[in-house]
Amino acid sequence: MRIMVINGPNLNMLGTREPQTYGQETLESVNERIKRRAEQRGLSADFFQSNDEGELVSKIQSCREGYDGIIINAGAYTHYSYAIRDAITAVGVPTVEVHISNIYAREEFRQTSVISAVCRGIICGFGTNGYLLAVDALAELSK
Amino acid sequence: MRIMVINGPNLNMLGTREPQTYGQETLESVNERIKRRAEQRGLSADFFQSNDEGELVSKIQSCREGYDGIIINAGAYTHYSYAIRDAITAVGVPTVEVHISNIYAREEFRQTSVISAVCRGIICGFGTNGYLLAVDALAELSK
Amino acid sequence: MRIMVINGPNLNMLGTREPQTYGQETLESVNERIKRRAEQRGLSADFFQSNDEGELVSKIQSCREGYDGIIINAGAYTHYSYAIRDAITAVGVPTVEVHISNIYAREEFRQTSVISAVCRGIICGFGTNGYLLAVDALAELSK
Amino acid sequence: MRIMVINGPNLNMLGTREPQTYGQETLESVNERIKRRAEQRGLSADFFQSNDEGELVSKIQSCREGYDGIIINAGAYTHYSYAIRDAITAVGVPTVEVHISNIYAREEFRQTSVISAVCRGIICGFGTNGYLLAVDALAELSK
Amino acid sequence: MRIMVINGPNLNMLGTREPQTYGQETLESVNERIKRRAEQRGLSADFFQSNDEGELVSKIQSCREGYDGIIINAGAYTHYSYAIRDAITAVGVPTVEVHISNIYAREEFRQTSVISAVCRGIICGFGTNGYLLAVDALAELSK
Amino acid sequence: MRIMVINGPNLNMLGTREPQTYGQETLESVNERIKRRAEQRGLSADFFQSNDEGELVSKIQSCREGYDGIIINAGAYTHYSYAIRDAITAVGVPTVEVHISNIYAREEFRQTSVISAVCRGIICGFGTNGYLLAVDALAELSK
Amino acid sequence: MRIMVINGPNLNMLGTREPQTYGQETLESVNERIKRRAEQRGLSADFFQSNDEGELVSKIQSCREGYDGIIINAGAYTHYSYAIRDAITAVGVPTVEVHISNIYAREEFRQTSVISAVCRGIICGFGTNGYLLAVDALAELSK
Amino acid sequence: MRIMVINGPNLNMLGTREPQTYGQETLESVNERIKRRAEQRGLSADFFQSNDEGELVSKIQSCREGYDGIIINAGAYTHYSYAIRDAITAVGVPTVEVHISNIYAREEFRQTSVISAVCRGIICGFGTNGYLLAVDALAELSK
Amino acid sequence: MRIMVINGPNLNMLGTREPQTYGQETLESVNERIKRRAEQRGLSADFFQSNDEGELVSKIQSCREGYDGIIINAGAYTHYSYAIRDAITAVGVPTVEVHISNIYAREEFRQTSVISAVCRGIICGFGTNGYLLAVDALAELSK
Amino acid sequence: MRIMVINGPNLNMLGTREPQTYGQETLESVNERIKRRAEQRGLSADFFQSNDEGELVSKIQSCREGYDGIIINAGAYTHYSYAIRDAITAVGVPTVEVHISNIYAREEFRQTSVISAVCRGIICGFGTNGYLLAVDALAELSK
Amino acid sequence: MRIMVINGPNLNMLGTREPQTYGQETLESVNERIKRRAEQRGLSADFFQSNDEGELVSKIQSCREGYDGIIINAGAYTHYSYAIRDAITAVGVPTVEVHISNIYAREEFRQTSVISAVCRGIICGFGTNGYLLAVDALAELSK
Amino acid sequence: MRIMVINGPNLNMLGTREPQTYGQETLESVNERIKRRAEQRGLSADFFQSNDEGELVSKIQSCREGYDGIIINAGAYTHYSYAIRDAITAVGVPTVEVHISNIYAREEFRQTSVISAVCRGIICGFGTNGYLLAVDALAELSK
Repeated sequence: MRIMVINGPNLNMLGTREPQTYGQETLESVNERIKRRAEQRGLSADFFQSNDEGELVSKIQSCREGYDGIIINAGAYTHYSYAIRDAITAVGVPTVEVHISNIYAREEFRQTSVISAVCRGIICGFGTNGYLLAVDALAELSK
Repeated sequence: MRIMVINGPNLNMLGTREPQTYGQETLESVNERIKRRAEQRGLSADFFQSNDEGELVSKIQSCREGYDGIIINAGAYTHYSYAIRDAITAVGVPTVEVHISNIYAREEFRQTSVISAVCRGIICGFGTNGYLLAVDALAELSK
Repeated sequence: MRIMVINGPNLNMLGTREPQTYGQETLESVNERIKRRAEQRGLSADFFQSNDEGELVSKIQSCREGYDGIIINAGAYTHYSYAIRDAITAVGVPTVEVHISNIYAREEFRQTSVISAVCRGIICGFGTNGYLLAVDALAELSK
Repeated sequence: MRIMVINGPNLNMLGTREPQTYGQETLESVNERIKRRAEQRGLSADFFQSNDEGELVSKIQSCREGYDGIIINAGAYTHYSYAIRDAITAVGVPTVEVHISNIYAREEFRQTSVISAVCRGIICGFGTNGYLLAVDALAELSK
Repeated sequence: MRIMVINGPNLNMLGTREPQTYGQETLESVNERIKRRAEQRGLSADFFQSNDEGELVSKIQSCREGYDGIIINAGAYTHYSYAIRDAITAVGVPTVEVHISNIYAREEFRQTSVISAVCRGIICGFGTNGYLLAVDALAELSK
Repeated sequence: MRIMVINGPNLNMLGTREPQTYGQETLESVNERIKRRAEQRGLSADFFQSNDEGELVSKIQSCREGYDGIIINAGAYTHYSYAIRDAITAVGVPTVEVHISNIYAREEFRQTSVISAVCRGIICGFGTNGYLLAVDALAELSK
Repeated sequence: MRIMVINGPNLNMLGTREPQTYGQETLESVNERIKRRAEQRGLSADFFQSNDEGELVSKIQSCREGYDGIIINAGAYTHYSYAIRDAITAVGVPTVEVHISNIYAREEFRQTSVISAVCRGIICGFGTNGYLLAVDALAELSK
Repeated sequence: MRIMVINGPNLNMLGTREPQTYGQETLESVNERIKRRAEQRGLSADFFQSNDEGELVSKIQSCREGYDGIIINAGAYTHYSYAIRDAITAVGVPTVEVHISNIYAREEFRQTSVISAVCRGIICGFGTNGYLLAVDALAELSK
Repeated sequence: MRIMVINGPNLNMLGTREPQTYGQETLESVNERIKRRAEQRGLSADFFQSNDEGELVSKIQSCREGYDGIIINAGAYTHYSYAIRDAITAVGVPTVEVHISNIYAREEFRQTSVISAVCRGIICGFGTNGYLLAVDALAELSK
Repeated sequence: MRIMVINGPNLNMLGTREPQTYGQETLESVNERIKRRAEQRGLSADFFQSNDEGELVSKIQSCREGYDGIIINAGAYTHYSYAIRDAITAVGVPTVEVHISNIYAREEFRQTSVISAVCRGIICGFGTNGYLLAVDALAELSK
Repeated sequence: MRIMVINGPNLNMLGTREPQTYGQETLESVNERIKRRAEQRGLSADFFQSNDEGELVSKIQSCREGYDGIIINAGAYTHYSYAIRDAITAVGVPTVEVHISNIYAREEFRQTSVISAVCRGIICGFGTNGYLLAVDALAELSK
Repeated sequence: MRIMVINGPNLNMLGTREPQTYGQETLESVNERIKRRAEQRGLSADFFQSNDEGELVSKIQSCREGYDGIIINAGAYTHYSYAIRDAITAVGVPTVEVHISNIYAREEFRQTSVISAVCRGIICGFGTNGYLLAVDALAELSK
């Protein structure tokens, strides 16, 4: 089983951006941990980050072939990108939505996700460990 | 008279994406039919597709010179891209908005188009034939 | 194939009513053009206009027998007549909604159509040519 | 005791219209059953159906003399006819609102009735048997 | 100067309908008083009442020829009839909206008039005298 | 056929609570009348009242075995208890919602029922006779 | 009968302020015309203008003694001064609300009057003649 | 580390209730799996289910002593129980909110959780496996 | 005069729960102070606390006999328990609503009380002294 | 300790204004009672009433020096005067908001107070006794 | 070129009021700096402050003669004074709206300005320097 | 001090796009003027324009190193790009939001800026001079 881990806008700044909210670990380090967890579960993981809505849409589309699961933290696009929502629906690959912080305890605009309805499940508020839980969840689905 | 046919995010997946909603014809095939209809009407047609909001904006801007009409299916950007709306206004070329499915019979968020108010007309719900009707409508306007 | 063209309240005043919005062509003249277009497409067309919601409902119901398509411009009833909506659903004949002006570029109350969701498609903003495009759309459907 | 049974727009199509929602019994047959039930209860029943809001208003007004109860299924007018609401208030005859389907389990616009507040009671969701329950309810009131 | 006085649904029941709100004078008697006031002002007045939205629309349209002013109490249609609104706009005759009761001191749905925006002026809350004030207002306009 | 009649909070105070709204009959007396009506219809009826949302949920669940119909007046829980709604859905027994007063003619918060959508039908505004009509309605369903 | 004519903020600028909306007549000239009309009707009229909400409230209160009617154009306070509303209620003198322009045909915030509900009647859209009609209306009430 | 697993209303019906949404596993079986997962992680788990809001509040309060983590699926109370929310805040024990189904892909009322803002994290949409992920998440927090 | 002091969910945790908001005094200590104040005023006071909505409803009902006043802090139920509201109305005993903190300076959901409208008065924001002021207020009413 | 008692618009009419709502006691008499209560508590009280928002703002500002507490009934300004709210915040003196009637049981616009959030506490619904309770509350704060 | 600098309610407390939001500079000192900046730009500046809405309206009106620009910080009146808005429109002098703090980063009610739409431009968030930027902006306009 | 001037979608069309709204000066010319003003203030300025949301986000991120201030006119992205908002927050460089036209006097959707809350200040409505004022404002901040 092969999974694609997609991070959206500003997540490339993990570790330096608002550390009280997002922690001090960089995205590279998080991805490293995800990779190891995936291997423990017998999965392989690829990684993609972009600040660009269109590139995220295209990457999701490209998962149609060769991927069995997607883990996505769409960053701020979570709250308005119906284009990403449509891409997830179009590609038909089970997708897990992850948020590092508890978005329901933050500003009101962060409490709406336009992609949750087309994802398989949502994991939110567990810091960067949330990505690892998402790997576990996908591993479980593939059994 | 020369027209530009612009398709937005996920329309490159026509034919494979949710065929019960969007049909089984690919975008290439649709474009082929548009081309023929345009020629029958004495028009020439060019084609552009992108998943990227910024590229769509730039393409619309570029129609300022050399194009007499735009046909646009902005996909999910229809529902929130004021940038595309502004580009249509800025470029001043008569624009026809097309939707393959009847967006008014679908999810609530699909029932709002932020670009309709700046388009010349809207054609919606006739499947991929809607593009052909748009060609006819532009041909009529040019008389 | 036989189609019924139904016009709602105040459309009998076409040509005299707010010509800057609705043009200077009378309804008779428009109907004449529709008739010719239908004949070119191998269809026959009948016409009905009423200011009365109940009469419009009854006329739609009567299309159940003998008609293969309806073209309707419900005028102001577009915005609140659930009775017309129910009639369209009840009669089960493919229906095309037409608006002469671009209702999405006008007053807010004109931007909601309670019948769009039960129509096959919507054509809006092309002046009285919209009726001709509707004829084409129905002709295409019947193929 | 004499009651008037009033049915609004599209109810003349009962039996043929969306049978999965409204059943296969015609309005004539329903009225026949209502008549028998009324007679069992010692009441007499008259019947009226119209697609026209104004005719419904006038019929309700005419019940001021000679009728002791009204049973009304106002069809789609239920959701917006303040004119019918005013007529019910003006005529002062106890009125029972009936809906064949459970309108609260359908589209959102069907979940608002502008006439409920001026009716004596509401019966909804029991198919055409709802009319019979309304007869019983009026019979009970007259005791 | 010739004026048309139009009353909408349930106003034929004036005098018997909720007298604590609408008073005990019949519509005939009110019209008689309007006629006399008009004559005092050197105007002639015609009268029309209907419970039917379509008939009201048609009557308004017919005032295009031969009438210099309209006085309208659209009854409950005031709150939702965009068809009547469009007719007033279409006919282009100065129109005064009258309400017998103070609609702003009643139920919330009565506090919105969809026709006020296209009328010349509004007179509301003065009982049946409001019609007489409307005659005066139109007389003043014609000077 | 066996039915369970469930009354929610404050209905144990029937007869003493706001008699101008709810009448002067006690719940015991109402239940007695329901029992007799049920027997006339060949049904047996059991009764339950609680002020406690959790107990109401548990009682509804327990109807899964041995009951063919539920009549419920959930009192104030009607307006917000999604737990009761879920219990009705979970148990899968045909359920009739009853209200003694016409809740649509009262305070705005009483005009929303979160359980109507999962009930078979609704009877409202006929005083305590509404329970008897509900018995009749269930008897009819069982035929 | 003695009446007080009260004008609120910016009405002292009548004649110079936005003449396309409010006309070219000054407040002094309007008051002169009101005075004459009042005398013709056998009434006497006093006048007050202030830009200050508190002064308007105090003036309304002072009408409790010695005045039989108030004519008020509260200017922009119309849309939010619950203090003026309370003063009108407190003083118990029949009050007529006047607006020079048709406020229902202007910006949305001008379409709400918080004082209409406590006024006897409303006259709006007839230019400065509206004050004269208000005098007539009060004269009629005093009969 | 000791955790309390709390299930709210109707979750005692797991396995029999709407199996297409909630699966066919009973709550006992789920709890058994949670117990094993907890033991693998070196934690101990206790279990509680109630249909009663008050009992759930009291149980949460009791976790103040002796528990290091709470896993809660509050069922329908999720959507309105501010009492449960306050209890979670009051007790100060890290709490994970779990939902079996993807509540964001269901009815609108299920898309609001009043307790998310005071939970540490949310896991939703992974069926009964969600509870196991919650155990993992709490185990991770305790490191 | 005998009064019942009712505290709702989570108020049993006073003193330990969020002391920065609710203070460090326990409910027992508060009740002791209330008792003394009541005695000074010549009243006797009884006390009840429950986390359970149904128990609170039942306790309020039981005050119908033998109590002349109720002081209630309904905790989080304040914001949604129409069942408690109905119980207060049903029992007809003068009721004072108390809140320890200023609920209008906290989260938005805490700024709505569904029971205020049926209470005699509200005292809010004075810490636990608010209960003593409520005793004084009831004592004053009984004079 | 010295307190300032501030009353807003129309409260100078206490005793004559709507006595069924506000009672028959004049403001002078109320102030007399407040003075005595204050003296009993060892406080001195000064009094101010104005119909003018600006004067109220200035008076609140002036309390910065020499006053330890403010009691304010802002009358209708309660519902919209952010200027008064800002003054209370700016002056930093503990302020108690008082309302004579239960504003939560009246018109909807009276149910919002824009100043509650910046007051120390709110007392509402106890008639003019509410001012005395406010004196007690401030006396308690000063201990 | 002569400009009027108008400050609204509570701005007389600058320097003492919430210094963390508004800074420690007094209004006199700010005005001094504005005067110097104006002189550098070849303009003269006059100053006015009032807590009173009516006085602010009158002052704006008086600028009609002799002033070429207005700088206004309307304080809390910004959010609801349509009277000030109307005065700005009436006087027709270019007006710049200034806010010391970034009102868009504060409470929600501060994020709406009813006067922005009739001002020439808005400067917000730069502390008291904002007034100087406004002088520059007006100087630029006068070129 | 070094500043980055960022312009968003369609601002590359300045001078040709809707000149009545945006003026006739090209972006190059504006940038030239900004450069000169910056140099006068002892600052250096760099420039960036893109129609692409992702590129704008990346450019803002890149200002983390080497820039002391950002001036941004995000064009239509102003109204919905939470990604740009997050980038501004993440980069922590003082940012000034500029709009050429007065967005508060235009369409309703233009009156909401999702980035204002995270910018230092806002300058709006002064045409292209607004950029120069922003340079001044940043220069002032750096003192």
